[in-house]
Amino acid sequence: MTGASALLEALRKQGVEVCFANPGTTELDLVRAMEEVRGMRCVVGLQENVCTGAADGYGRLAGKPAATLLHLGPGFANGIANLHNARRARTPIVNIIGDHASWHLECDAPLTSDIESLARPVSGWVERIASAQDAAGAARAAVQASLADGGQGATLIFPADFQAESVTPDSADAAAEAAAQPETFDAATAWQRLSRAQKPLFLLGGGGPASGLGRRAQIAAARLCAALGGKAYAETFPARSERGRDLPDFDRLPYFPEPARAALDAADLVVLVGALPPVTYFGYAGHPSRLVPAERLLELAAPGQDAASRLEALAELAGAPAFEPAAALLPEPAPGALTPQSIAAVVARALPADAIVSVEGGTCGYPLYAASAGAAPHTVLTNTGGAIGQGLPVAMGAAIACPQRRVVAVLSDGSTQYTIQALWSLAHENLPVTVLIAANHQYAILRNELRRGNAVLGERAAELTALDRPRIDWVGLASSYGVQASRAATSEELATQLESALRQPGPVLIEMAL
Amino acid sequence: MTGASALLEALRKQGVEVCFANPGTTELDLVRAMEEVRGMRCVVGLQENVCTGAADGYGRLAGKPAATLLHLGPGFANGIANLHNARRARTPIVNIIGDHASWHLECDAPLTSDIESLARPVSGWVERIASAQDAAGAARAAVQASLADGGQGATLIFPADFQAESVTPDSADAAAEAAAQPETFDAATAWQRLSRAQKPLFLLGGGGPASGLGRRAQIAAARLCAALGGKAYAETFPARSERGRDLPDFDRLPYFPEPARAALDAADLVVLVGALPPVTYFGYAGHPSRLVPAERLLELAAPGQDAASRLEALAELAGAPAFEPAAALLPEPAPGALTPQSIAAVVARALPADAIVSVEGGTCGYPLYAASAGAAPHTVLTNTGGAIGQGLPVAMGAAIACPQRRVVAVLSDGSTQYTIQALWSLAHENLPVTVLIAANHQYAILRNELRRGNAVLGERAAELTALDRPRIDWVGLASSYGVQASRAATSEELATQLESALRQPGPVLIEMAL
Repeated sequence: MTGASALLEALRKQGVEVCFANPGTTELDLVRAMEEVRGMRCVVGLQENVCTGAADGYGRLAGKPAATLLHLGPGFANGIANLHNARRARTPIVNIIGDHASWHLECDAPLTSDIESLARPVSGWVERIASAQDAAGAARAAVQASLADGGQGATLIFPADFQAESVTPDSADAAAEAAAQPETFDAATAWQRLSRAQKPLFLLGGGGPASGLGRRAQIAAARLCAALGGKAYAETFPARSERGRDLPDFDRLPYFPEPARAALDAADLVVLVGALPPVTYFGYAGHPSRLVPAERLLELAAPGQDAASRLEALAELAGAPAFEPAAALLPEPAPGALTPQSIAAVVARALPADAIVSVEGGTCGYPLYAASAGAAPHTVLTNTGGAIGQGLPVAMGAAIACPQRRVVAVLSDGSTQYTIQALWSLAHENLPVTVLIAANHQYAILRNELRRGNAVLGERAAELTALDRPRIDWVGLASSYGVQASRAATSEELATQLESALRQPGPVLIEMAL
Repeated sequence: MTGASALLEALRKQGVEVCFANPGTTELDLVRAMEEVRGMRCVVGLQENVCTGAADGYGRLAGKPAATLLHLGPGFANGIANLHNARRARTPIVNIIGDHASWHLECDAPLTSDIESLARPVSGWVERIASAQDAAGAARAAVQASLADGGQGATLIFPADFQAESVTPDSADAAAEAAAQPETFDAATAWQRLSRAQKPLFLLGGGGPASGLGRRAQIAAARLCAALGGKAYAETFPARSERGRDLPDFDRLPYFPEPARAALDAADLVVLVGALPPVTYFGYAGHPSRLVPAERLLELAAPGQDAASRLEALAELAGAPAFEPAAALLPEPAPGALTPQSIAAVVARALPADAIVSVEGGTCGYPLYAASAGAAPHTVLTNTGGAIGQGLPVAMGAAIACPQRRVVAVLSDGSTQYTIQALWSLAHENLPVTVLIAANHQYAILRNELRRGNAVLGERAAELTALDRPRIDWVGLASSYGVQASRAATSEELATQLESALRQPGPVLIEMAL
């Protein structure tokens, strides 16, 4: 077998089942090896940031890595932005980059570049395969590395000659697992500190089922709040969180520094439950970057640790009452022309049980969070790293990880343009993803920032944040990529179209006119 | 004035007139400064690789840098692929990246990343502004650096706090010029070596007017070939070259190693005229990477040097005859269903004088080169670095650099998808760009590589290189972005539609069904 086949087979044995691919000439032996090594689903993206974003969505749901297959430095570079988001989400991903033949590198052919320098900022682990015989071992190491530290990008650079060369088949076949970190948790000490607090605040971080925003941790946090008179917040942009009418309705920590500080300053102890110490999103003059001084922080669980069990142990120590969900409240959508609030109300009502909701963009993101407390139980994925163009590919990857679940992507028009090519992959794979585009034809988040402190939006600033000359025709755009599409201007239209979309076997896009 | 205004004003004084922008929150003080500093045309791209590719096209034609304005590490990363192409084209570009406030960096907020590590592989020069007062000087240094070494990327990282702070206005105002490299050329020694060659081959490299593929150098090369019995080739992927019926018809050096070696091995001396020593595009087993041993190379002019004057001096020493253009031959398009050859013939006939032609993709690229020898004089821009998704943004930038010239982009469907968002900017700016899409609904270049040596295309390889489920509707896609569009299936339809498109004041896209 070839080095390429050995690598693919090793990935398969380590449990990697999906590869989001945009290969080029230096990956062709890996493409050829796909004929031989069965069981690896290959999903083509028309641009690499689609592939890496989909791998992020897949990994957030599957809890194990997908592979990406990318072409040299420039192909990898096209996927960096969503790998940046994946890094912040602690998503395991294995990136395979074909490189020039090892003996060809020194002549600096047109596509040669410093791949390592590009890869390191978004990879916890980078390795260059040094021989065909090394390929299988490198694949195992990459999967293992991707699961380390709560999940990270692991990037393997695979020179084309080593892909093509013959190797002796590798006999190792143990599936990779995250090296079990022995967790030591001193519940008594934590309880001692917590029980002394007058106004504790639990900051819950998202991730897998045992994270601070999994079901168990949220319920334990609600019990502790009830017992201690505390409050709990979700971190502002969780990788994955559970939400809906059978769970407590915690606010997200606000984005802008003034309301975030108001929330945090009211607490005499901020308990980090799988969340990082809160910092402002950008530096704002007059506000500290670190919103809570170290002496008011208690790290109950770091991201990736078993936050649920720790909170449950504390709830027992507190003698906390059982959790009773509040009466489910679902806002009624105002009739007529769409607003962010009416969109949120329509979507919250329509969400099927166990849906996955990928949210990107401020226009509907916050209203939907508020409205969805009373919705059917669902899983929310948000943009963790701020590199926009993440919501659509993440929805695509989530749909591939969870073929039995409906995926709804609630997206802003500006951000969706960055990876618009994902629409083609949705159609190609016929994925049950409903894409809702809040079409306000502007970069609204920038206008909000520009207007902070009652500033006037300047003429050129308005030009540079306008997307309305021409207005993008989202229905035409989706149709051109083979995705069924319609436009809704009122709550009633949206409700009808959404209900229909959620019954389709494949993707549907609805442009929501704002 | 603010640091941001000081930077913009310094760029303006250095002759920078255009900024391709996709700003975010950490660039808002630069956006605000645009209200104050007049004369900088801002062109918005919906994705950063559109901005960097447009800056490449602009710089190739203008011979001076445009600026790009990009958002932190992830926004910059989205533009790396086309900066890679620009690096290979030796295009001067000044990248401005807003970063977090200097005091905010240490807290590792979500959008923080190692910008320098991302920037270095595509920048000959990277600097981080260290105070507001430094901004003007840094801008001058960046423009100067962008013009060094024959042109390169110069990347300035500008922390948000230094953008906002007040500075004393800067008094320097000298426009930047490339530091005049004193060129020493010993014509007699070069002539001595050249005159001893039995079969010299001139390899002409593209670039500005004095490059090996400017008009003067091509004519001098033709004279030398006539005098010495030599041959001349254009490098395979020139940044910029002149072509048409009043110039000699030189072949491009072939892409694949077999025909490239056949051409080069026939020569006993390969004279580099603004071209690098030829290497194979990828490493091919059984072929050397460096196609010509050093002892058979004569470097007459390095890229960026005055190749034209050197060739003219040698032509005088050779007593070469004057150049007489051959009778203009234009192939007749075969009627009926489109083929790459009939497309090439239609386009070559329709090209208006002084057109700029941006070519990307193998399907029509080679046939068009062959057909265009007899076309009206025009300028050709090709993909210099192999990072696909370059042709459409480069056309956009060229149109902005040369508002009096028509731009025709001859592109493949697979590669155009990478930066499809450029269509919106063409419509927004109403640029006179005619976009011709060769729609064969596959990654044909990869299939050609996979079939090398009469190999059979495997089933999964066919899947991974297919773009036909669903077929992208290019007419619908362009219309959705506000670009007028039509579809041509025959030579006759293409000729009619192209003639009409070339009379429109704004952009038109024609899908060419293959």
